[in-house]
Amino acid sequence: MKKSYLFSPGPTPVPPEVSLAMAQPILHHRTSQFTEIFNEAREGLKYVFQTERDVIILASSGTGAMEAAVSNVLSPGDKAVCIRGGKFGERWAEICESYGVIPVNIDVEWGEAVKVEEVARVLEANPEVKAVLWQASETSTGVKHPTEELASLCREKGVLSIVDGITAIGVFDVKTDQWGLDVVVSGSQKAFMLPPGLAFICLSEKAWEAVENSKCPKYYFDLKKELNNQKKGQTAYTPAVSLIMGLRESIRLIKEEGLENVFKRHALLAKATREAMKAIGLELFSKSPSEAVTAVKVPPGIDGGKIPKILRDKYGVVIAGGQAKLKGKIFRISHMGYVTKFDMVLAVSAVEGVLKELGYDFEVGAGVKRAQEILWGE
Amino acid sequence: MKKSYLFSPGPTPVPPEVSLAMAQPILHHRTSQFTEIFNEAREGLKYVFQTERDVIILASSGTGAMEAAVSNVLSPGDKAVCIRGGKFGERWAEICESYGVIPVNIDVEWGEAVKVEEVARVLEANPEVKAVLWQASETSTGVKHPTEELASLCREKGVLSIVDGITAIGVFDVKTDQWGLDVVVSGSQKAFMLPPGLAFICLSEKAWEAVENSKCPKYYFDLKKELNNQKKGQTAYTPAVSLIMGLRESIRLIKEEGLENVFKRHALLAKATREAMKAIGLELFSKSPSEAVTAVKVPPGIDGGKIPKILRDKYGVVIAGGQAKLKGKIFRISHMGYVTKFDMVLAVSAVEGVLKELGYDFEVGAGVKRAQEILWGE
Repeated sequence: MKKSYLFSPGPTPVPPEVSLAMAQPILHHRTSQFTEIFNEAREGLKYVFQTERDVIILASSGTGAMEAAVSNVLSPGDKAVCIRGGKFGERWAEICESYGVIPVNIDVEWGEAVKVEEVARVLEANPEVKAVLWQASETSTGVKHPTEELASLCREKGVLSIVDGITAIGVFDVKTDQWGLDVVVSGSQKAFMLPPGLAFICLSEKAWEAVENSKCPKYYFDLKKELNNQKKGQTAYTPAVSLIMGLRESIRLIKEEGLENVFKRHALLAKATREAMKAIGLELFSKSPSEAVTAVKVPPGIDGGKIPKILRDKYGVVIAGGQAKLKGKIFRISHMGYVTKFDMVLAVSAVEGVLKELGYDFEVGAGVKRAQEILWGE
Repeated sequence: MKKSYLFSPGPTPVPPEVSLAMAQPILHHRTSQFTEIFNEAREGLKYVFQTERDVIILASSGTGAMEAAVSNVLSPGDKAVCIRGGKFGERWAEICESYGVIPVNIDVEWGEAVKVEEVARVLEANPEVKAVLWQASETSTGVKHPTEELASLCREKGVLSIVDGITAIGVFDVKTDQWGLDVVVSGSQKAFMLPPGLAFICLSEKAWEAVENSKCPKYYFDLKKELNNQKKGQTAYTPAVSLIMGLRESIRLIKEEGLENVFKRHALLAKATREAMKAIGLELFSKSPSEAVTAVKVPPGIDGGKIPKILRDKYGVVIAGGQAKLKGKIFRISHMGYVTKFDMVLAVSAVEGVLKELGYDFEVGAGVKRAQEILWGE
């Protein structure tokens, strides 16, 4: 007998209510029945994005919405600052390059957050820059960049703020409207507790003005066309109906808990995970830890690749290893979405188990004890 | 009490086995467990596409794969013949225009199939054309274009054949390899009996050579990058995991029935529908009917918009109306995917019911009787 437990930083576990909603008989999308569900999901997205504006739903993974941000708002020859502090920061620069947008890269040591002064310096040195692109939460390193401060800098300098909020929206506080974020992107398989396949994107009035002048080619990800359709409760192309049926349900669950409480839960689970890892002598990789995912350094002498592999194949516990240059050097435990205190105890227990098996020297139980203290004691 | 019955030409009904497969706990995609499912689905796609080549799976609706076909194989300034015999033929031309590809349009009367001689004439008059783009089945009109003959013409003239097989692959016989089709596109929500959200695309060696020279920007729909990943049982970006779990199951069902039998079933259901409509005095819209969907002219004096609306809201039976300039003029009944003889009797019965209600003069029961004769008598 083996049970499976999912702690990957996307996809995250899907609540049974959401699975049931998605298993309902499929609806034709050109009907008032679908429009009703779609409009409810769209209203709910505004709540989670903390915005009064339209949040556009796309049938794609998050990368599709990242591409849409670049191809709808910028033009070939434009310069854009890309904050590259991990695999997803690099992705912003790659997308820009694909469209002839010239990335002005700020390379941040992986594991560290970008310094706002550094971005200010680069913007001053490059007054022709149109936008700054970053991750609110860089999933590959478990780092949280200072989104509110960066947004404020962008407003001051008159450049667009384009934010990958894929592992941030619904995870921790991101005030789209209040902070004046121009473009915010997210995806279904993180805090939204859905399978992958939906992406979300929200534009400010300033960003919509930029759309009017954008010269990049686009068709499937044509946001203006989508907005015109979605305002009428429809989509330009066939929507991912079952995922949208699930989205309405998952947003209902988020509303029921309350966004503030969701943030508090994520913060508590993240803290318990970090403290537990430290209690067994491990070092955290991120100097500015995101509440989405905790990145932990593999201790010296241990084969880092084996940690997620043994956990998965022998224990049924799925965490993520490191990506790209972090392969074998870190492991990552997610605590976003449909995750409880008990799940976190389980995850810490599993990490203790595999480290014991791999011969790491520590006091077994110390991690779980510390997690318990944080989870129940505070 | 109201039961729902779906006869829209996408999405089509999802079998319970497939719904259950999709309701399984979600998997992390960077695992051997996912790769096993993904590879099995990919092998199955080759069977349904009748190809030995890789069929790439994208997280998007079919239009995304149509865009990928253009943006990966063609370049700005290239000329491409677009066969415009309906809404989806127009879409090919629109996508080309978005990317600076110059469409040479062949406008076909909606409801009719393109004449191969006409395409030959246009190719002779435009020797610089790189590709011909068409629909194997034009969903908006219920028309089947002569794909085998067009492919043969393309080979003869040395131009690429780019085929929208969204309502053709798995519906009726399309021999991707044997007919020498260069690009074939399909989607999940038709014969594949899945919710919308996956698109499929298959390229010939000649098309892959064209990819090397393509100058259109692309990132999310970068097929070369996808192929490199998918050959290793992975995807470039997060795949729509639950839909892929469903895809493996739906292909299992198709294999169990056998592709030839699936085609025969679709052909029989389509014939029964056509004959039933004629038996109650209605006229078919398509002069070259597709086995995917039967398009029927709204009889004079009847408000065409009311037919699908009453069927849906009062009877729980979902069929499609006409799109674009056919709005109110035709209605469309799908018979692709998870549809049985009994379902077809039900659809015909429902059409009789609504037409009676709307005051159309006909012999009630004549349609269902004729359908029965075809379904059981032959």
